[in-house]
Amino acid sequence: MIERQLPHGVADLYFEEAARKAQLEARLQETFGQWSYSQVIPPTFEYYEALAAEASPQVREEIYRFPDRDGRMLALRADPTIPIARLVSTKLYDRPLPLRLFYIANVFRHEEPKASLRREFTQAGIELIGEGTAQADAEVIALAVTALREVGLGDFRLRLGATDILRALLEPLALSELQSEHVKSALERKNEAALNDVLRRLSLPREASRALLTLPLLAGDAAILERAAKEFAENDTACAALERLREVWRLLDALGVSDAVSLDLGMVRGMAYYTGIVFEGFTRGIGFAIMSGGRYDNLLAHFGRNLPACGFAIGVERVLTALQLQGDNVISLSPEIVAELDSARTLAQRVKVARGEGKRIEWSLRRCTRDELILFARQRGAREIWFADGSVHELA
Amino acid sequence: MIERQLPHGVADLYFEEAARKAQLEARLQETFGQWSYSQVIPPTFEYYEALAAEASPQVREEIYRFPDRDGRMLALRADPTIPIARLVSTKLYDRPLPLRLFYIANVFRHEEPKASLRREFTQAGIELIGEGTAQADAEVIALAVTALREVGLGDFRLRLGATDILRALLEPLALSELQSEHVKSALERKNEAALNDVLRRLSLPREASRALLTLPLLAGDAAILERAAKEFAENDTACAALERLREVWRLLDALGVSDAVSLDLGMVRGMAYYTGIVFEGFTRGIGFAIMSGGRYDNLLAHFGRNLPACGFAIGVERVLTALQLQGDNVISLSPEIVAELDSARTLAQRVKVARGEGKRIEWSLRRCTRDELILFARQRGAREIWFADGSVHELA
Repeated sequence: MIERQLPHGVADLYFEEAARKAQLEARLQETFGQWSYSQVIPPTFEYYEALAAEASPQVREEIYRFPDRDGRMLALRADPTIPIARLVSTKLYDRPLPLRLFYIANVFRHEEPKASLRREFTQAGIELIGEGTAQADAEVIALAVTALREVGLGDFRLRLGATDILRALLEPLALSELQSEHVKSALERKNEAALNDVLRRLSLPREASRALLTLPLLAGDAAILERAAKEFAENDTACAALERLREVWRLLDALGVSDAVSLDLGMVRGMAYYTGIVFEGFTRGIGFAIMSGGRYDNLLAHFGRNLPACGFAIGVERVLTALQLQGDNVISLSPEIVAELDSARTLAQRVKVARGEGKRIEWSLRRCTRDELILFARQRGAREIWFADGSVHELA
Repeated sequence: MIERQLPHGVADLYFEEAARKAQLEARLQETFGQWSYSQVIPPTFEYYEALAAEASPQVREEIYRFPDRDGRMLALRADPTIPIARLVSTKLYDRPLPLRLFYIANVFRHEEPKASLRREFTQAGIELIGEGTAQADAEVIALAVTALREVGLGDFRLRLGATDILRALLEPLALSELQSEHVKSALERKNEAALNDVLRRLSLPREASRALLTLPLLAGDAAILERAAKEFAENDTACAALERLREVWRLLDALGVSDAVSLDLGMVRGMAYYTGIVFEGFTRGIGFAIMSGGRYDNLLAHFGRNLPACGFAIGVERVLTALQLQGDNVISLSPEIVAELDSARTLAQRVKVARGEGKRIEWSLRRCTRDELILFARQRGAREIWFADGSVHELA
């Protein structure tokens, strides 16, 4: 017997599950288009060097690779942003800026960290490239919220931070990389005791310690921006980053999405990669982020084109799970009509017209009696039978 | 500098080209749905054994493979029908028959034979599983024609043969495999002299030789079915296969697609795999088949489930090329409207409503003068500018 099992971490999708995924992707595609984003389809594999060079160490470790017949190492894409950075640098240099790009791409990782152990999963996201303004930040965040709303997710929140604020607070302290890591790690865990401990051991100046200890508390709505302004008044860089965040917030408010966003200045996620705002989306019942994004102004320069950039990626399977938990609309794959296929040309014509109007119609492919066909159509979940003789039978 | 080139045989798609592909796929998805087919999404990779066992020798040779971390050999899918056969046998055994499944899947081969040397390309196709009737054959062929029509291909033909007719003619001759191959090869090349030569060397009975020599001439419209009936009158199996083909043709006629189909009883394509009808689609300007399909009643048994099956696959990139040659409609990715993003809530609301109506709207993300914004919007190809103060400017 042929091998019939699937390897760990990959799956078949079929029937309702596949239809739900296709529907979600179509909705995202439509929304991104309405915001004037254009689709990019990078290849599934390319040179390992190109994909690995700027990947995070964690992602790099997880990349699937294999030698081509000419001996060069290929790899399956593990993060759509990397091929897009390559594309923007090599092929889109004559296009007017900013570039608005979106993708819906399956990616491959040996183990997706902390998650459902999927090794193939789908990311849908956007990149806004060539514009570094607060308006650009706001557009990206607003589109993230809009996309999740458009696919029907009712109950989610974006947690929004700004990596440049923490960076501004750490910078004058001239900490070693290891010391910085200790601070960030304590911040990330929102563990005040641990943070206190770390800061004491570093014997920092009182004000610096105080500012860092305050950070995890600066989480909530716009009011925390006022408190932060007072706390960091003496750090000009932090104040500038904070002022920028206030402007982003005002725009989010105007765009009608601020009610879905919580500020959290203690966010340290992706500090190595992100240079400004950083955000993650969470929803009820899902223990990890369903989307994440931020500003990454340094990445493209590595591919030879120095452009500011901001983007996000939605975890498609996670959103599908969230929608299911929330009691998503059920998709029916039953035909509306079962029609009896024989050489009756008028029925064929009628079926063609009805399909053109969007009706789901199934041909019955066997000679059988009227009663057998009624039984069959009932089993298929159809509402009507169209017989070859032109008669119609409605099912209760 | 990071590697910026792509390996041979894979490509980035972006802007209009990506949009055209997405639009084509959406149209196919819709058409398959109207015929009551349901989507299947197999994984991109699975165990090599599962994918290679029933692949044609040619495809097997072309499969990309690589070891998993646990040492087992994985492979990228090279033919969507194989994973679907596995799926049907392992997971869909309790579903009522027939099963109507469709897929839109990228596949991977080291070299696509005779073609554009793509190593990653997309196939969109269907499988009708569990029904072996002439009606099932007709549905599959009619859907192939309809799908190509629906995506806007104006000028194409399906070449339809029946592998069981040739098989019926060869069977009583008790040829060796090699001898059969010689006959088929001469038939495939439609080379009458070579065929004559092969048949003479085999010293076959006169009637058998005559029937085989006639086969390549039996190509055209329904009239050839009458001629064939006379030619093969003494071979009962061939007559039965021919009668079946006549029934299929009558149904194609009723379904309004026979004008796109040419019969060709000399087709030997895929004899090892196909058990009944076999067909290929061709169009102007493309030197190879843009789609192919047929009945394959033996495949599923290898996966443990003995069911008749019939299907086809469309080469998505080839159809896109054909549409382009034919002067396909141009897709515009210009925004209809450029709107000035600031904290004006009424404008944001208006933009939201217009996007909801399907309009493509781009935010302008920089503070600039009125004239600068007009220049920018013109460069973007927009027709209108919506200023933050509520005023609207139309561009010529």
